[in-house]
Order: sequence, then structure tokens, then C-alpha cells
Amino acid sequence: MVIVMAPYAGETALADVVAHVEAAGGEAFVSRGVARTIIGVVGDERVLAGLVVTQLPGVAEAVRITSPYKLVSRENHAGTSTVYVGGVPIGPETVTLIAGPCAVETPEQTLAAAQLAKAAGATLLRGGAYKPRTSPYAFQGLGRAGLRILAEVSAEVGLPAVTEVVDAVDVDDVAEHAAMLQVGARNMQNFTLLQAVGSSGRPVLLKRGLTATYEEWLMAAEYIAQRGNLDIVLCERGIRTYETATRNTLDVAAVPMIRSMSHLPIIVDPSHAAGRRDLVLPLARAGLAAGADGLIVDVHAHPESALVDGAQALVGESLAALAETMHTFPALMGRTLAVPSAAEATVRE
Amino acid sequence: MVIVMAPYAGETALADVVAHVEAAGGEAFVSRGVARTIIGVVGDERVLAGLVVTQLPGVAEAVRITSPYKLVSRENHAGTSTVYVGGVPIGPETVTLIAGPCAVETPEQTLAAAQLAKAAGATLLRGGAYKPRTSPYAFQGLGRAGLRILAEVSAEVGLPAVTEVVDAVDVDDVAEHAAMLQVGARNMQNFTLLQAVGSSGRPVLLKRGLTATYEEWLMAAEYIAQRGNLDIVLCERGIRTYETATRNTLDVAAVPMIRSMSHLPIIVDPSHAAGRRDLVLPLARAGLAAGADGLIVDVHAHPESALVDGAQALVGESLAALAETMHTFPALMGRTLAVPSAAEATVRE
Amino acid sequence: MVIVMAPYAGETALADVVAHVEAAGGEAFVSRGVARTIIGVVGDERVLAGLVVTQLPGVAEAVRITSPYKLVSRENHAGTSTVYVGGVPIGPETVTLIAGPCAVETPEQTLAAAQLAKAAGATLLRGGAYKPRTSPYAFQGLGRAGLRILAEVSAEVGLPAVTEVVDAVDVDDVAEHAAMLQVGARNMQNFTLLQAVGSSGRPVLLKRGLTATYEEWLMAAEYIAQRGNLDIVLCERGIRTYETATRNTLDVAAVPMIRSMSHLPIIVDPSHAAGRRDLVLPLARAGLAAGADGLIVDVHAHPESALVDGAQALVGESLAALAETMHTFPALMGRTLAVPSAAEATVRE
Amino acid sequence: MVIVMAPYAGETALADVVAHVEAAGGEAFVSRGVARTIIGVVGDERVLAGLVVTQLPGVAEAVRITSPYKLVSRENHAGTSTVYVGGVPIGPETVTLIAGPCAVETPEQTLAAAQLAKAAGATLLRGGAYKPRTSPYAFQGLGRAGLRILAEVSAEVGLPAVTEVVDAVDVDDVAEHAAMLQVGARNMQNFTLLQAVGSSGRPVLLKRGLTATYEEWLMAAEYIAQRGNLDIVLCERGIRTYETATRNTLDVAAVPMIRSMSHLPIIVDPSHAAGRRDLVLPLARAGLAAGADGLIVDVHAHPESALVDGAQALVGESLAALAETMHTFPALMGRTLAVPSAAEATVRE
Repeated sequence: MVIVMAPYAGETALADVVAHVEAAGGEAFVSRGVARTIIGVVGDERVLAGLVVTQLPGVAEAVRITSPYKLVSRENHAGTSTVYVGGVPIGPETVTLIAGPCAVETPEQTLAAAQLAKAAGATLLRGGAYKPRTSPYAFQGLGRAGLRILAEVSAEVGLPAVTEVVDAVDVDDVAEHAAMLQVGARNMQNFTLLQAVGSSGRPVLLKRGLTATYEEWLMAAEYIAQRGNLDIVLCERGIRTYETATRNTLDVAAVPMIRSMSHLPIIVDPSHAAGRRDLVLPLARAGLAAGADGLIVDVHAHPESALVDGAQALVGESLAALAETMHTFPALMGRTLAVPSAAEATVRE
Repeated sequence: MVIVMAPYAGETALADVVAHVEAAGGEAFVSRGVARTIIGVVGDERVLAGLVVTQLPGVAEAVRITSPYKLVSRENHAGTSTVYVGGVPIGPETVTLIAGPCAVETPEQTLAAAQLAKAAGATLLRGGAYKPRTSPYAFQGLGRAGLRILAEVSAEVGLPAVTEVVDAVDVDDVAEHAAMLQVGARNMQNFTLLQAVGSSGRPVLLKRGLTATYEEWLMAAEYIAQRGNLDIVLCERGIRTYETATRNTLDVAAVPMIRSMSHLPIIVDPSHAAGRRDLVLPLARAGLAAGADGLIVDVHAHPESALVDGAQALVGESLAALAETMHTFPALMGRTLAVPSAAEATVRE
Repeated sequence: MVIVMAPYAGETALADVVAHVEAAGGEAFVSRGVARTIIGVVGDERVLAGLVVTQLPGVAEAVRITSPYKLVSRENHAGTSTVYVGGVPIGPETVTLIAGPCAVETPEQTLAAAQLAKAAGATLLRGGAYKPRTSPYAFQGLGRAGLRILAEVSAEVGLPAVTEVVDAVDVDDVAEHAAMLQVGARNMQNFTLLQAVGSSGRPVLLKRGLTATYEEWLMAAEYIAQRGNLDIVLCERGIRTYETATRNTLDVAAVPMIRSMSHLPIIVDPSHAAGRRDLVLPLARAGLAAGADGLIVDVHAHPESALVDGAQALVGESLAALAETMHTFPALMGRTLAVPSAAEATVRE
Repeated sequence: MVIVMAPYAGETALADVVAHVEAAGGEAFVSRGVARTIIGVVGDERVLAGLVVTQLPGVAEAVRITSPYKLVSRENHAGTSTVYVGGVPIGPETVTLIAGPCAVETPEQTLAAAQLAKAAGATLLRGGAYKPRTSPYAFQGLGRAGLRILAEVSAEVGLPAVTEVVDAVDVDDVAEHAAMLQVGARNMQNFTLLQAVGSSGRPVLLKRGLTATYEEWLMAAEYIAQRGNLDIVLCERGIRTYETATRNTLDVAAVPMIRSMSHLPIIVDPSHAAGRRDLVLPLARAGLAAGADGLIVDVHAHPESALVDGAQALVGESLAALAETMHTFPALMGRTLAVPSAAEATVRE
């Protein structure tokens, strides 16, 4: 069950409802959105069946949600949410391009990539300071030094930054330097990390795990939402299959499937799905044509010398082709290319 | 090695080249295209290394091809081939819509579906008379009676027919009633059937096997090509993965990957990939945006009573949305919607 | 529904029951076993609900079977069947070793492999005359010449032969030369072939498809059973997964799972699962420990010069280790090593 | 490169070698084993090519290791390591049974399960206090209270405890209460956690990720080894495939494959692979027959009321069958059932 509080309801009314739920033997999870506060209720079926809350002060309505992911499910919210990242919307009206280097290496390299990204239509800057790597002997990112470079470049080019956090202890630090926190595929079920970003006060980009089902993915989002953070954007980045000719298999059906299951926006990462430059543009177009709310793309001014994933970074002609796509595809999908908005906060009503 | 014969070369020159190859210990596979004839040569590396054929009468050139699929590889042909099916092109300049019922059930049902298909922009009619079914207790298609219905409806609405053949012994019969023979996913490595359609004189639609790699798929095409039939169109229809929420996982990257590996056209089947009506349009759009040369889609006037796969057949609003897509997407991809052409034959030069 | 005829029931009684079923709107599939004849009935639920047959002459009992594979399901037969191949049992009391060369190349090579196989404990000889190969340029087997070699060696060493058939038109020919027909993984859903071997009068070894589910596999067996042939042995040979370090992933759980779903015997092919010699013995042991009724293993006297799959063929020490396993494992599993039996026919009661 | 220090080499010699490596531009990772200390060296190929260390005081030998996982690779150690957990060996001479409840629920339930485990032949006790769960609404384990219960039961029945840690911040706490730390499948690439258990001074049980390749798995082990902890036992627990009839697909070939790639011991978890009680015994036997060094199995006195994974917990007859297997299988594999040893420490020479 999800209890929606009225806009005027105050803390006392909220505490009363929570107490009422707990007295009945249920558990209450409070999520404070911009427009209103909602309470997820969990517990034994028989207990919940007898729970009547609509007569309590401040309660607008109570919805029985049967899906195992309650706060992020479409049952909980009919429209598709728009999440604002430093004023830039990600939602159903727009197509948002997030671009930048896979890893932050130097101020010069990061700035060059950011300028390329902006010229191609990006309004958010990606760049990794903490890189989870399969091998302990591979470049692991610059860490805090990388965060500082990213924040400086972000301010210089005027693009809010999106960056990955791999450890719960770093969340505050990363949240201070970036507008959006990314949880990577390998950490999709790192529940400690999910809870930490859920309490961070920052919007979160949640990548799909390597072989996560749609339901497991939405359950991971629910871990974040349960901590009161519904500013979540999902990212399809390819799944692992028997086919090894591509790095991963982009599951483009994830876009309409997640749309039907959840109110959260969803974007596509064609770079990590493909693993090779020549596939990035076709996969980016496919993602947009399937209805994605945006793209996140690797860009590098000198991909041949990139420390991480240079083979998939766009530059030159391939980047120009992406820029062209960003001009033609949004209209085809009845959208506009996302630009920063005065409305800085998430709108969910 | 592939030996390309000059346009003027006659049968005697051809026979001489074949004899020369065989005398050297190699095997020669002759493929007669419209513009010219080519000979695939296979054999021991050391034998082939010493084989010199360019001085023989009628030989235009000899190309050493290293990929394991020689006749269908991009190394063998720089451009992308256009295959003509009853005068309708499938190739790089156009987007071709093949639509119709999954299975032919009655003349009325087939005609109704064909009219819906044509109204939506289809210029080729699909419809199954032989249905390979997992269960021996499921409807297996009408067989010959179905072929006759399909041929009659095809003539009535003026759309050349595409239909599946599941057994080598039926190839002649099917070829008599249809303009294009389809080899289904379960038969992608039924080598007897591949060789039979290779000798049929009809263009072939070769679906990707459930878990076929790109290379295995092209090898299957090579079995057809080896029998002198290069009029092959590949069809991505989703692969089997761990994700069970969709019937299959559409591997949209197959479109640009096959493009880079082979000169054969490739289309997408969003209906069998999705298995549910609401996903067909997003997947169809994704396929076209990735560069597919066409679509094959299930259409049924009364899907709720369809004998096979009704849940994925388009009708009403979903079909109207597809028709709209067929008007807007081709231009975006620098193509036109395919219409019948006076040039009935495959052009490969 | 499955109707079991009494042992004394004759053709007239059988024909009456079939007529009764058909008059009620159902379809009847007759399977003639050694001990008795059973009739699989299929049709609309409402029709079948009203069907009463137990009062008809010759009917022993009628069982309502809910699984989609009726004749091969455990619901249809409580015990595990024993299939006899040239007098050699494959069933729950024994462990049967089928061994020999992957492909028949020459009389000498086949004889040498057969002698190695027999010395290691094999009582059935494997050997391929028709080889389905991914590439049209690979060695496809000797065909009829190979069948003759296999039959001669089989007679010489006294091991009944098991060999693959890849085309329905070859079934009679193969059945004449071998004691058991093998349907390979690529042909598991070649329904024409399944029906042909179902009518062949020979026991059938049905390999699991590359990515077949247990249910699809049993459905394929049902196609054979429907033609009156219940002498079917299933063979787990590894499935395709994301892991590429081994040729396939042996799904050893298939053994107890199939045991719980079907009365058919099941054996394991460690050679094709592994693809490398050093894994064959551990996988063979794992299969037996999981309860398999036998093994089918590649053996070659000179694997380094084998035309097909030499890398996985046993010889020398690895073969001696297999022989040792055939002496120690059966007792551990409460079984004996299979030897030819006077009872030549399948016992299912 | 791996540098092996002589047994007599002291801290000064070690520091000198590290300084020498770093001066040349390489990185040095020190692992202190019981018998001797080894140094993993990483860096640019050209730098390492010129590095000469064998003349330095205290250096026994320097081995160039080409595999990407250096410290755990078979190249680094010819024999198979034996890891001691509270005096109980896990290695090539023995078969070790780890058993107990999936989750610690109450002192009584944990004690009952531990007694069942011990009676079945277990010499190590498993039991989860921290449970990573897909749903935020599922039972997450008792946490610290669970650790205390586990430690008390462990002492009472005399079985050293193995328990999962899901967060780097809990490592010290868990290490205080248990003899071995388990890293679960979902955390196999939680690199922060891997490094923390690598510094914990406790042996580590590292489960394979849901779709981890062998190489990725060994890379994860390398993260632990790099922090000086080579007391690592790998655990195959089934991988995710298209087949959904079982919870996971036990990849039994992982046992001989890991054996050929690494010197680390490997055990099998048939409970989580199967997900259903009737498959646990066949999979346990298959694992041992493939050469596993042990098993980890769920046991519960009242599985019908278990809070986590009751469907796969052994009890009664199924547990008796496991006990029987623990008596018969080790001898078959040339091993003995593991018992506590006076030698408490890992022997690697």
C-alpha cells in the first residue's frame, strides 16, 4: 500500500499516520517529494487488509499496489516523472544528452571532451573519477583529484556533472562535487550503496546490472526510493549474452518495458553497450526511436590515448553524426532537445 | 578465394576455370548472379596459394577472401546488395514493409489481414502455411491448402507473397506459390533445407537462429549462396537470453554489425522479438533507426481469435501507428518506402 | 488424456477407441509399445471433459495428463523406462557407455577407435557418417560410405552402432545400418526429422538443442513418441551460455530434472560439452554422480589427425581413466555396467 | 612479475626490493604468506623487461607471470593450496562439508541446524547474519545480533563459523565473530569489499558472480590477494542462463577449469544452484565427482518456516542421503572427509 499525503499535511499528521501503520503491525517508509510526501507500507497481507487510513488527517489517498516495487511502479504514478539535474530535465517531453569522457584523466583532457560534448548538444557532463575495474592492475580513476577536475570543468563549460560513486563512504564527497550520482552496473545490487545514494539528496542515475531482470532493476531503484529519493533515472547499457562480437547486447526493449512498469525516466548508454565506435550512432538512434528520454555517451578528443574505453569514445565525424541526430530525432519522437530550465526541482504531478 | 567471371564469359570459360581449380586439388562452387557469375574456391591453404587463375579466359579478377563465409562477406562485395522480390526491392535505398498474418487460417482472414497490411504501407505479404511448432499438439498450419489461399490473396491484393518452408521436400511446391521463401529460426542450421532453397531460384529470407552468433548466421547464408543463390535477405528476430519478460531479446546491434560483415540486406521482425503488441512499434522504430532495410510484422484483423501468436499481431491503433512510422522514418534515414519496381532482378553491381 | 489398452486388446478394439475419440471431436495418436499400446488424446478441454472411454472393450485405463508432453511425461509412467539398443540396456539399473570416433573417416580409423572404446567398457559404438557442420566448407562426413564402414566395424567388434541422421530422406538408409538413430542438437526442432525417426522402428538418441529448455526438449521427444516410438533416450550435451572458456556449459542438473519430468532414460555427452580432453573425465564423472543412465564419449586413436573435434577425443591416459571410472562409479550409484542382454526389447512395465 | 622472497628474508630486504621496483617505475604488491612473502609487480611492459631483481638480498626467485591474475594463478604456484579455517583444511587431500542455516533466525533454530550439520559430517558451520536481498521489503538478516548467535552456536557445537559480509564497514565486526568471511555472488565485483576482506586477516570464501567468467572471478580473487591475503576459497554456485526451471545452472566444469587456471581450492554450493531440495544431492555428488574440494549446503530443522530459501534446505531423508554421500564419495576421489587439524595455518609449500 502507498499512502499519499495531502500537500498541506504537516509533520504531525505524517507522524500520526506512521504511528498508525506501525501499531497495526506494518512498516512505513516515508518518501518526501517536492509536491507531496508519500508513505510506502509493507507488511503481512492480513494486517494490511485491515488497515484503514483514509480517515486520518492529512491523508489524500491510499493506493493498494501489488507490484513488488511499490514507490517506483507505474501503479504508484500514472505519468512519467521528470527528474531535474542542475535544472536540466530528463523526462517525457525532452531528449537529454549526457556526454563526456569515460574517465577524468587531466584538466585539459576533461575540458576538451566537455567542449566537444557541449557542441554536440549535451547539457549534462559525464566523467568518471572512481572507475570500478575488473583487474586490480588497471587504472582505477583519479578519485578525489578527479572530482575536483570534473567540478571545475563543469563550472567552466556550464554543464552540470554526472559521476559514478562506487562506495557508500564516498557519497557525501561525490555529492558535493556533482549534480547527479551514478550507480554502475556492477553495483546495481550493492544495497549499502543504493541506500546511501537514496539519502544523498542528489538525483541518481541507476545503470542496469549485467544480467539484471527488469524486476531486479526496479527493486534496486526501490532501495533508493525507500530512503526518500524518487529522483531516479534508469539507464539501459546492454546485457551479457552468448554473443561476444559486441561488448554487450543492447536490450532496446527495456525502454518500452520499463515505461510500462515504472514512472521513472529511462535513458540509453550506447557506448558501453557497443564497445566500438562504429556502433554507437546506430544504437543511440535505436534507443531514441524506442522512446528513451536521453542518452549517455563517451566522448574523447584523443580516443587513441584514452586510459579507459577509448575504442568506444566518439570524436570527429562520429560525433558530428551524433550532433546531427540530436537535431533530427527529438522532433520525430514529439520531443525537444533538453535545455536547462528555471524549474530546478523534480515535478511529479 | 573468389573468382569473378567477366560479364561476357560463357559456359566454356566457366567450365575451364572449374576444371583448373579441381585439377589443382580445390573445390569450386559456382554462383550465377544477374550481372555476372562468381566461383567460390575452397581447399587446402597450400594448394590455393599456388593457384593462378587470372590469366584464364573469361576471368575478370580473383579475390582472396579470408572470412569463413566467402560469397556473402563484405570482402566479396563492397556495396550492399538489393534483392528484388516480385519486383519489390529490399536494399540500401529503401525501407520495405512485409506484413500479414502469422498463419494462413482461412481465405477471409488472410484477405482481411492482407488489406490491412497494404493500407499500412506493405508491398510484400507474409503468411505461414507450414508452421513449425514446439508442441506436436499445436496447430501446424494448413500446408498446401494454405499455400493456395496465400497465392490467391497475393494475386487479389497485388502483394507478392513471402512464406516459410520447413522441409526440403516442400521447396518446389512453396516456390511455385510464393515469391520469397522464408527459413525460420529453428531451421537456421537445417543444412539440407538451406541447400534446397539455395537451388530454388527464389529469393530467401533467412531468420537468425535462437542463439546463433553473427558468424554462424552468415555461415548458414553461405550454405544458400554456395548453391548459386545470392538473393538472400537476413532477418533479426530476437535472441534467447536470461530475460523472460519479453519473448526474445531484439539484438538491434545485429543491423550495423551484419552491415559491416556482409553485403546482404537485413530486416527486423519486431513481432516475434517482442511477443506482445505494445512493444512492436517501439522495436520496429528502433530497427529502422539502426539502419534496417525493412520490417516483417504480424497483422491480424481479429487477433483475439488468431490460431498462432495473436498476442503480438497489430490491428487498429497499433497498426495505424506503424503506418505513420512508415511515412516518417524512411526519409529520416535517407531512404524511401519501397514500391514495386520495373527492375525485377537483383542488382549487385 | 492417455488411454492405455489392455495387453490382450486387438486391432478392432483399438480402432473402436480411436473412432470414439474422433467422433467426440478429439484427435488420437497411437503408440505401440512392446508390452501394450497407448493412445494419446488431444483436443478442446470441454470436449475431453465429456469423453468417457473406460467402458470400451480393451481399454485398461484412461489417465488425464496435464503436462504438455503427454506420452513421455512421468505422469504417463511411474518408473523409468529401459530402452534396449541391439540388446544393450539403457535404463535405471545400469550405466551404459557409448563410445567411438566423432566421425567415421576410414575403416582402419573406425576399427581402431572401436577397439579402444570396447576396451574401455563400451557396449555401444558411436560414429558419424553424416556430420552437420556450421561451415559449408568443412568436412561433412562420408555419408553412405561411412554408414557401410560403421556397420562393418560394428559387426567385427560386436558393438551395436549409434549414428546421427540429419535428413528425413536418409532415415531408412541409416536405420538399415545402425541399431540406434541419433538426432543432433541443431536438429532438435527439425520436426520433419523427428517424425521420420518416430516411424523408423529404431531407438532414438535425442540430443538437447543448444538453448532448449527442458520442456522444449521433452516436446521434441513427444513428436517422436506420437509416431508410436517410445524407445527414446535423451542426451544432455551442454548448453550455450555467456561463458566461452568451455565449448558449452554442461547443465548437469538436467539429469535429475528430466528424471522428475519424464520416464525416458537420460545420458550425458561430456565430450561435446567440454570441447577439450582434460575436462571430459571430470564431466563424465559428474554426469554419472548426478544419476545419468550412461555416457557417450568421443574416442580416437590419433586425435591429432582427426577430421572433426580431435581436441576432445579421449586416447591413452585419459581413456584409461575413463575405463577406471566405468569400473568404480556404477556400484557407487547402485548400478552395474551395462552388458548385452537376452531381452532385446524395451521393457516399460 | 612475481618476486618470491626467501624464507629467511626480513623486512629490510623486503623494503629494499619494493624500493627497487618503484624506482624502476613499477608498482609492488606485498603478500605475506605463512611460509614466505611474495611481491606482485605491475607496470609498463618496457619497464618490467629491464627489471633485474634476482641479485638483490633475500630474493629467492622472480617469475614472469603472463596471466592477468598473477598471485592466484597456477603459474604462480604449481600445487593446489590448502586453506585452513579454524584448523579445518580445505584443499586437495580432503572433502570439506560446510553446512548450516541460510540465515540465522534464532539461537534455537541456529543450534538445531548446526547439530544436523555436524551429524551429517560438517566441520564448518555456515549461517547468514547479513543477507543481501533483491527486495528492500524482504528479511535482511539479524545483523550484529545474528553474528552473536552464530558465534555462540559455533562455540557450543565446536564448528568454526563461515558467514557473509556485505559491507566493508562491517568487516572487522564480522571477522571478530567468524572464522571465515564469505563474499556473495552479488558482491563479487564490489571492489571496496574485496579489498577490505583482503586486509581482514581471515580466510575468504569468494562466490562466483551471477554471470562472471572464470577470468573475472579470478580477477576478483586477485583484488583480495593483492592486499596480502591468499587464504581464498572459490565457490561455484550456479550461473544465470536462459533455463528458468532451476534457480541457477550449476556450471560443474568450473571445478576442473579453475583447477587448471589457479592454485586456489574450489568448493560447490548445490543449494543455491538448485533452489529446490530434490536437486541438492545430485548436484552435490556431481560437484564432488568433478573434483571439488568441498561443499556448502543449506540445512534447516524446519525448512517450511525458514525466513530465507527454505525450499532448498536439507532436512530428514535428504540430509541423511548427504551424510551417506560424505562417507562414500571422498574415498572414490582419493580423498578423506576433512577433520580439524593441529596445523592451523595455510600451507602453501
